[in-house]
Amino acid sequence: MIKGNLVIGQSGGPTRVINQSLVGISEEALKHEAIEKILGARFGIKGILKENFLDLRKFSRDTLELVAQTSGAALGSCRHKPTEEDCEKVFQVFAKHNVKYWFYIGGNDSAETADIINNIARKRNYELRIFHIPKTIDNDLVITDHCPGYPSAAKYVAMVFQGDDLDNRSLPGVKINIVMGRHAGWLTATAALGGAHLCYFPERPVSMTKIVKDIDEIYKKQGRCLVAVSEGVRNVDGKLMLESKIEEVDAHGNPQLSGSGDLGDFFTNYVKAHSYHEKLRVRADTLGYTQRSFPGVVSEVDAKEARLVGQAAVKYAMKGDIDGSIVLNRIGEYQIEVKLAKLSDIAKKTKILPDEFINRESNGVTKKFIEYISPLIGQLPLTTNLCH
Amino acid sequence: MIKGNLVIGQSGGPTRVINQSLVGISEEALKHEAIEKILGARFGIKGILKENFLDLRKFSRDTLELVAQTSGAALGSCRHKPTEEDCEKVFQVFAKHNVKYWFYIGGNDSAETADIINNIARKRNYELRIFHIPKTIDNDLVITDHCPGYPSAAKYVAMVFQGDDLDNRSLPGVKINIVMGRHAGWLTATAALGGAHLCYFPERPVSMTKIVKDIDEIYKKQGRCLVAVSEGVRNVDGKLMLESKIEEVDAHGNPQLSGSGDLGDFFTNYVKAHSYHEKLRVRADTLGYTQRSFPGVVSEVDAKEARLVGQAAVKYAMKGDIDGSIVLNRIGEYQIEVKLAKLSDIAKKTKILPDEFINRESNGVTKKFIEYISPLIGQLPLTTNLCH
Repeated sequence: MIKGNLVIGQSGGPTRVINQSLVGISEEALKHEAIEKILGARFGIKGILKENFLDLRKFSRDTLELVAQTSGAALGSCRHKPTEEDCEKVFQVFAKHNVKYWFYIGGNDSAETADIINNIARKRNYELRIFHIPKTIDNDLVITDHCPGYPSAAKYVAMVFQGDDLDNRSLPGVKINIVMGRHAGWLTATAALGGAHLCYFPERPVSMTKIVKDIDEIYKKQGRCLVAVSEGVRNVDGKLMLESKIEEVDAHGNPQLSGSGDLGDFFTNYVKAHSYHEKLRVRADTLGYTQRSFPGVVSEVDAKEARLVGQAAVKYAMKGDIDGSIVLNRIGEYQIEVKLAKLSDIAKKTKILPDEFINRESNGVTKKFIEYISPLIGQLPLTTNLCH
Repeated sequence: MIKGNLVIGQSGGPTRVINQSLVGISEEALKHEAIEKILGARFGIKGILKENFLDLRKFSRDTLELVAQTSGAALGSCRHKPTEEDCEKVFQVFAKHNVKYWFYIGGNDSAETADIINNIARKRNYELRIFHIPKTIDNDLVITDHCPGYPSAAKYVAMVFQGDDLDNRSLPGVKINIVMGRHAGWLTATAALGGAHLCYFPERPVSMTKIVKDIDEIYKKQGRCLVAVSEGVRNVDGKLMLESKIEEVDAHGNPQLSGSGDLGDFFTNYVKAHSYHEKLRVRADTLGYTQRSFPGVVSEVDAKEARLVGQAAVKYAMKGDIDGSIVLNRIGEYQIEVKLAKLSDIAKKTKILPDEFINRESNGVTKKFIEYISPLIGQLPLTTNLCH
């Protein structure tokens, strides 16, 4: 065990439980004498570059418990891929502040950043324990059964669809919701729990003609139709449905898919124009940042596991010369064990929805997916109306 | 007291508590011998025209209690303004089914429908007790202190902004949310409770130049800015910001303002293009139908009052030759008494945000508004982060 200071950073889009992991690291670190200062870097790696640190030892247990229950990244976050110059600076700062432990909470881009820094540390013989602690509502990290942050977002999305299902029964028509998840359909799939008739995933390129045909069929039978569409849905040519309209990419080269209503409006207009049903009432909502930030919904399993992965990372760090990314392994139904993966095995890789979770028609989920997701989100609100 | 059957209908956009009013009417009606059948009309006045009724006596108390807690209009809803021919048909159906009591749960359009039917009933000497039971998330009915449905939607919107505030602190930039409410700023105003720096209301026409100037100032001071914009916001010429793009109107002549991301995208692009801050990160979300349907959030006060107005309407009906619209009168801080207003005084009228609730700059709310709204929504989730 090396004696030294510990730095925690948060990176990428926040989740409902990203602060559980922060507090998990912090409370576990308090137990170990090898760890001296517990520093929070403001705004991820940018806080390291600017030596902008918070002393986490000064906050009371009660304050940290409330932080754990709060959405957003309590330390601030960033989407910054370090340049060579940045990496040089990181090591200057780490040496100056005697940092021997670095815990980075984030998605696959953050794992990449951690991996880059780790490789340099090894080359330089700078003794540094680096851990990537997974978080992403997109659930798109490889190896792990699921990612902390996903179950809470999934629960929120399922509940939005529950409400929309009831609304759609009240005022029948076609209702389309655009769901987050980048290039993976994990979040979109949860719409099925809330009553979506149709779900379209990035994993299954699809033509608008097929989508309209599906909607028309459901509408003919039920007089209404509720549809979930992934923001990353692709046309049969493999291109994003609105490829030409995407103007922004982030530092890691990811296109901006969220924060615009374009895709929803495109769907509304297309379905109205091409459905054989006359005067069809079509509405689209683009589910926004509330998917990752809404304070009113949390999955209890998610909160617990997000705390656990933070604690586990510190325990691994105390075992010696180990680095890596924390992963969750599912045993039976439903237990979790924490394991460790190589940073390079997580970095930049994307886990898409497996075939066994998508139905044969490519427009919905399978029973296997429902079995996978159910223990993660727990009980949804009970609802009923008089007219089923 | 006339002996006969009772019909309940639900109309317009559902709310989180519209079924509380339905159950309130139904449970109170069970207590009175004058009321024979208790019928639910499917899809509002359309259910009357089609004689599409549910016998509400057949549902257990437990089922109705769960219905009361469920979003959406349990009987189905509609946006249909009756034609002369429809009115003729309504009286044929009422006579055939011996309907002597009609309770219509809805907004100002529904009050208009009730008023039309009421006037015909009087002319024809058809003895009919008609009551309009208020519901609307827009809170835009006159006379009443507030409308059932508004407090729950207000709580949801405030919580969305709480989450967005935390998200915006994590990844600073300009975040704009488009909020429902048609031509009144009541819902948008609640964004202030959740941390919005700026709110723009239909009551105060505003230029985009002024909006960008406001945002730039906040951003300069705080490095971030959270903005709430009413879907019905108007330009200085008094026209809707996107007047030319609105294609649909409903049967009551109201333009479709919701269900499109246009306004949000317009704001994003305008602010990006005109801010003096370079490479400004701007995102807009259009808060969707979840504002009226999200099952996970309800104001307890709202649920209680929505039940109360239903019960009260039946009690009034038992008093004799009375018709009208139920209103809530606020006494002190905070009690409610139920009163009755004339249908014609409610029909088609819109209550906008009063001057005393809008700040001098026309871009936020006053302390008086906070005092008005606070008892209606109750406690919001406690949150904290480490970096205030």
